[in-house]
Amino acid sequence: MSDLSEYYQQTGERLDKLENSSLVVLQKPEYFCFGMDAVLLAQLTNLKAGDFICEFGTGSGVIPLILTNRRSDVKVITLEIQKEMSDMALRSVFLNGVQHRISVLEADFCRTSTLLGTGVFQLVVCNPPYRSLNRGLINPVQQKAMSRHEISGSLEEWVREAARILKPKGRLAMVYRPQRLAELIMVLKENRLEPKRMIFIQSKKNRAPNLVFIESVKGANPELIVERPLIIYQQSGEYTKELINLYQGGGRFEESIR
Amino acid sequence: MSDLSEYYQQTGERLDKLENSSLVVLQKPEYFCFGMDAVLLAQLTNLKAGDFICEFGTGSGVIPLILTNRRSDVKVITLEIQKEMSDMALRSVFLNGVQHRISVLEADFCRTSTLLGTGVFQLVVCNPPYRSLNRGLINPVQQKAMSRHEISGSLEEWVREAARILKPKGRLAMVYRPQRLAELIMVLKENRLEPKRMIFIQSKKNRAPNLVFIESVKGANPELIVERPLIIYQQSGEYTKELINLYQGGGRFEESIR
Repeated sequence: MSDLSEYYQQTGERLDKLENSSLVVLQKPEYFCFGMDAVLLAQLTNLKAGDFICEFGTGSGVIPLILTNRRSDVKVITLEIQKEMSDMALRSVFLNGVQHRISVLEADFCRTSTLLGTGVFQLVVCNPPYRSLNRGLINPVQQKAMSRHEISGSLEEWVREAARILKPKGRLAMVYRPQRLAELIMVLKENRLEPKRMIFIQSKKNRAPNLVFIESVKGANPELIVERPLIIYQQSGEYTKELINLYQGGGRFEESIR
Repeated sequence: MSDLSEYYQQTGERLDKLENSSLVVLQKPEYFCFGMDAVLLAQLTNLKAGDFICEFGTGSGVIPLILTNRRSDVKVITLEIQKEMSDMALRSVFLNGVQHRISVLEADFCRTSTLLGTGVFQLVVCNPPYRSLNRGLINPVQQKAMSRHEISGSLEEWVREAARILKPKGRLAMVYRPQRLAELIMVLKENRLEPKRMIFIQSKKNRAPNLVFIESVKGANPELIVERPLIIYQQSGEYTKELINLYQGGGRFEESIR
């Protein structure tokens, strides 16, 4: 891997290695590094045989890398509007040798249906910015700002575009902040994406959740399964067994190898 | 208490006593006995000084009894469409000597705004039937059926009527099934009731929630606080400390005294 990485890794980039798997991912700390939210999204999403998947705003590419690693029969097209990020994600795809299964398009996710057509995907995965433009300071580094704030599209636009490109009964998997859950559910239902599965993620068992995973199905009947919460840390500060199990599905990036 | 109860208690009725308080409540097992959901709703609802409260579909009257017991400066008007139930609830009100603070109207909740006006209450509390008419067997005992199925009004009607009778910034407190949470949030937002506080209730810490408490504010900005889940039982099967604390606020009816 280190031979190839000499060709693919550029100045200012870090090569992170995934525990319990052979996956590696390039990151550029001055932009935006993915967090546990992206890894949990990739791990919690239900995958089905032969899924043709679209991801919006891939950043480092970590989500498609985990998805294709979890099942050998799925393919992912991912869109990333920021050229530096889409280049870097594409190099990570090559580093992992999955260029035949992941396509990285340098494009605004809003243009997905224009570029790829409507009703084509079984699954859309997205980890949208959590903050609306009128909330919080906007990061002066554009790449960070776009990952955190709704600069390249509002929640409505993310969900509307997902609804367009999904096949009937296609699924949309997202992580989001509980603070905006009511807005999210409203927008999903307005776009005929029915929330079907929800998991709240808590740092510890006696804490309020700080993240929610939500899977919706296009045109489904209303009936939501709220699963038991996912707890990240034991009281001792160590990871819980369920988190470790989840990560062993192939998704923990912590240790930087450069 | 037993002297009075001789006058108030009728054939087939049971007099239940509230632990840690002097409250008593009449119940008729052949109709519908309140469950832990009603008690939790009454205990989890935030009460403010001088709240003028409306409750929809009181059944036994347990919710207004707990609410008035929790704060001495609140008053409740409750509506109950079933004559036998509203009569029994009224007798429970007299048994507890709070007839100056709780009014029981034998009326359909849908008529609240017609009878009492719009924009008059600070708080509406309701524990609506969980099942829509096309789901599950309808109980042949009408009183039970009406408490479980949406016979006397759909979810939309409960929420719409609450929105009408609330003052601006007035609150609606409900418990509901997580399975229908997405529908509930949609209906709330359509009626400009913004979900602001949510608590999932789990029987044990590693179980999925089977109940959700949700408090909405009329005309508020979107921002939802999802609190940590409320766990009912320890792994040993005993009540958790937090549940006992909650009940000690005054709301546990378990022991039948007749």
